[in-house]
Amino acid sequence: MIYLDNAASTPVHEEVVKEMLPFFTEYYGNPSSIHRLGRNAHKAVEEARKNIAKLINADPEEVLITSGGTESNNMSLYGIAHTSKKNHIITSSIEHDAILEPCKRLEKEGFSVTYLPVDHFGLVNPQDLEKEISNNTALVSIMFVNNEVGTIQPIREIADICQEKGVIFHTDAIQAVGKVPIDVKELKIDLLSIASHKIHGPKGVGALYIRKGVKIEPFVLGGGQEKGLRSGTENVASIVGFGKACQLAKANFEKNTGHLQSLRDSLVSKIMKEIPHVTLNGHPTKRVPSNAHFTFFGVNGEDLIIKLDENGIAASTGSACSVKVQKASHVLRAMGFNHEQITGSLRLTVGLNNTEEEISKTTDILKQVLQELRKVSPFKEKYSFGS
Amino acid sequence: MIYLDNAASTPVHEEVVKEMLPFFTEYYGNPSSIHRLGRNAHKAVEEARKNIAKLINADPEEVLITSGGTESNNMSLYGIAHTSKKNHIITSSIEHDAILEPCKRLEKEGFSVTYLPVDHFGLVNPQDLEKEISNNTALVSIMFVNNEVGTIQPIREIADICQEKGVIFHTDAIQAVGKVPIDVKELKIDLLSIASHKIHGPKGVGALYIRKGVKIEPFVLGGGQEKGLRSGTENVASIVGFGKACQLAKANFEKNTGHLQSLRDSLVSKIMKEIPHVTLNGHPTKRVPSNAHFTFFGVNGEDLIIKLDENGIAASTGSACSVKVQKASHVLRAMGFNHEQITGSLRLTVGLNNTEEEISKTTDILKQVLQELRKVSPFKEKYSFGS
Repeated sequence: MIYLDNAASTPVHEEVVKEMLPFFTEYYGNPSSIHRLGRNAHKAVEEARKNIAKLINADPEEVLITSGGTESNNMSLYGIAHTSKKNHIITSSIEHDAILEPCKRLEKEGFSVTYLPVDHFGLVNPQDLEKEISNNTALVSIMFVNNEVGTIQPIREIADICQEKGVIFHTDAIQAVGKVPIDVKELKIDLLSIASHKIHGPKGVGALYIRKGVKIEPFVLGGGQEKGLRSGTENVASIVGFGKACQLAKANFEKNTGHLQSLRDSLVSKIMKEIPHVTLNGHPTKRVPSNAHFTFFGVNGEDLIIKLDENGIAASTGSACSVKVQKASHVLRAMGFNHEQITGSLRLTVGLNNTEEEISKTTDILKQVLQELRKVSPFKEKYSFGS
Repeated sequence: MIYLDNAASTPVHEEVVKEMLPFFTEYYGNPSSIHRLGRNAHKAVEEARKNIAKLINADPEEVLITSGGTESNNMSLYGIAHTSKKNHIITSSIEHDAILEPCKRLEKEGFSVTYLPVDHFGLVNPQDLEKEISNNTALVSIMFVNNEVGTIQPIREIADICQEKGVIFHTDAIQAVGKVPIDVKELKIDLLSIASHKIHGPKGVGALYIRKGVKIEPFVLGGGQEKGLRSGTENVASIVGFGKACQLAKANFEKNTGHLQSLRDSLVSKIMKEIPHVTLNGHPTKRVPSNAHFTFFGVNGEDLIIKLDENGIAASTGSACSVKVQKASHVLRAMGFNHEQITGSLRLTVGLNNTEEEISKTTDILKQVLQELRKVSPFKEKYSFGS
């Protein structure tokens, strides 16, 4: 299988698995227990926290460990909204559902939410944000990197505006961490969501960076773990794995991003050269090094994925989280794409395990599969396929 | 290390780890992806769900997978409270903080909460419940087995009352599953919380049984996984491990509970025979087979744990989740224990990996450690220690 769906999830790094293993059968204590096995587990969690913090230049005590990116996003929205006396939230129209759905719930609770538009590349305009911020704005939440088209937002400019206006700024950085340099101090970010399984760590664990001084309500209540901010027995093995994944991502940052970019650029240039009637979507330069997103005219993206799967290639139309519901991408719609452009879309996201050979093979298979599909396309004449 | 803190967490079963491993590095797809690796992951989650369901005689579609017992408990309370038009909740005064803390939040939101008292054994009186239920009661939440003293509540009687009055009944069964026979259909339970790591599965995963027809609001929102009831990329490896742990717990139920009960009974009889000034707390017969809870008069439970730890025994004073905050057990207080009885308490909880030899050794060490501590006890004269 050539796996080109690394934005959906990544294989866990062998070294990460190796670090995790003893915490299942040897160091299985509950970190809240005061005996040796409990203290060992507690210590391991704190070591992991340091590595998570280092990757984004945070202090360890600013890192809250959660069950994943979705929980981090939910907590940011509810936690700030319910702490604040203000009742206006600003986000963008291309956020992940883990932001948009909590926003809808907050609207039902009486909050007003502004969804900023994006341009054809998927970029938010900071001037739009500036105009929308009022004295009543509690929170601005704009994603760092879009999960479908890979566009990188002007985070520093957005953060500057928020700081100037005294509004808390959250960014869903789930697709950015490990692939784009992130320094929360320099970028003036207040809250930032991370998911372990997007950076070759295990699923089911994530973090929320909470800048020192930011007041936030806990989301999950109970035994008071994580200084009362996130209750529930710590997921020790997974946290240890997440920490290792962060350490590896930090240590190999240049090498990794270079590898991803080289593969992605090669994929894009091959496809654009060898396949007709195709567009590259998202921003030409302001994009995460792992993402390539295309529209292949005259075909249906889902047929394309199934055909690619039959030929040993794992790809996606957009967000993995929404494929089951078969709805047209709200991201592409917000970017002004018409139905045909949305239908023919394909996301290929490279990861650390991919090779240049796989990229060449993918281009060849894609070319062949597209020829087959286009031969029977209802738009055959429109594009003169096969002529 | 002789590990006698199995109520806090359990070692993961070797077979569970073996099942989990391929899902880190081979079958790492996102279950929402439509390609082969996604479908494999999805299938594995559904297979696990069947095994979780079987353990409590539920249908697989009645099993919601969560990040753990705490989330299951939080979701039950908020999910029912926010769906219902009624605003009264009944629980007990000996629940875990994962129930009590959400109750406090609901009280702030305007709900009224009744905390039922318990007797000296930790038992709720079903007649008290009957008296407190009104037309305004949305939910009754009573734990199946208490996490500190191991008392088993009259769940069937409680469920009968709830059904008769048309009130939804939730039970936190985190300490009961795998140790007490549970048939949700026969017991007429509407909602039931489970945690994987208490039954030799991995940490960071749990389930909420939701009887068909019960309307509940989701807690975590986003991509719409778990039929929209729990968003976030499924924690595939851990879910697979949890499923295996449930399968093993079901297949070996008689053997396991027999083993636990034999060890626990042996521990209790040895201690009661060989050590003076001690009481066994909780109910003499209505108790989970793994739990032994004592008061050793004239000593401080925390000193005892530290001494036992030095001698290679892992024990606990009560709930692992509250030891860090060093507050006196609300469970023992509700059971009418005085300060001295609470201070001298020790919880020893056996697990599948313990042996009879460990039990004998524990009794010997405990005897010796207690002699040392009692020699310097401020209550030395009161109890005529050493005389």
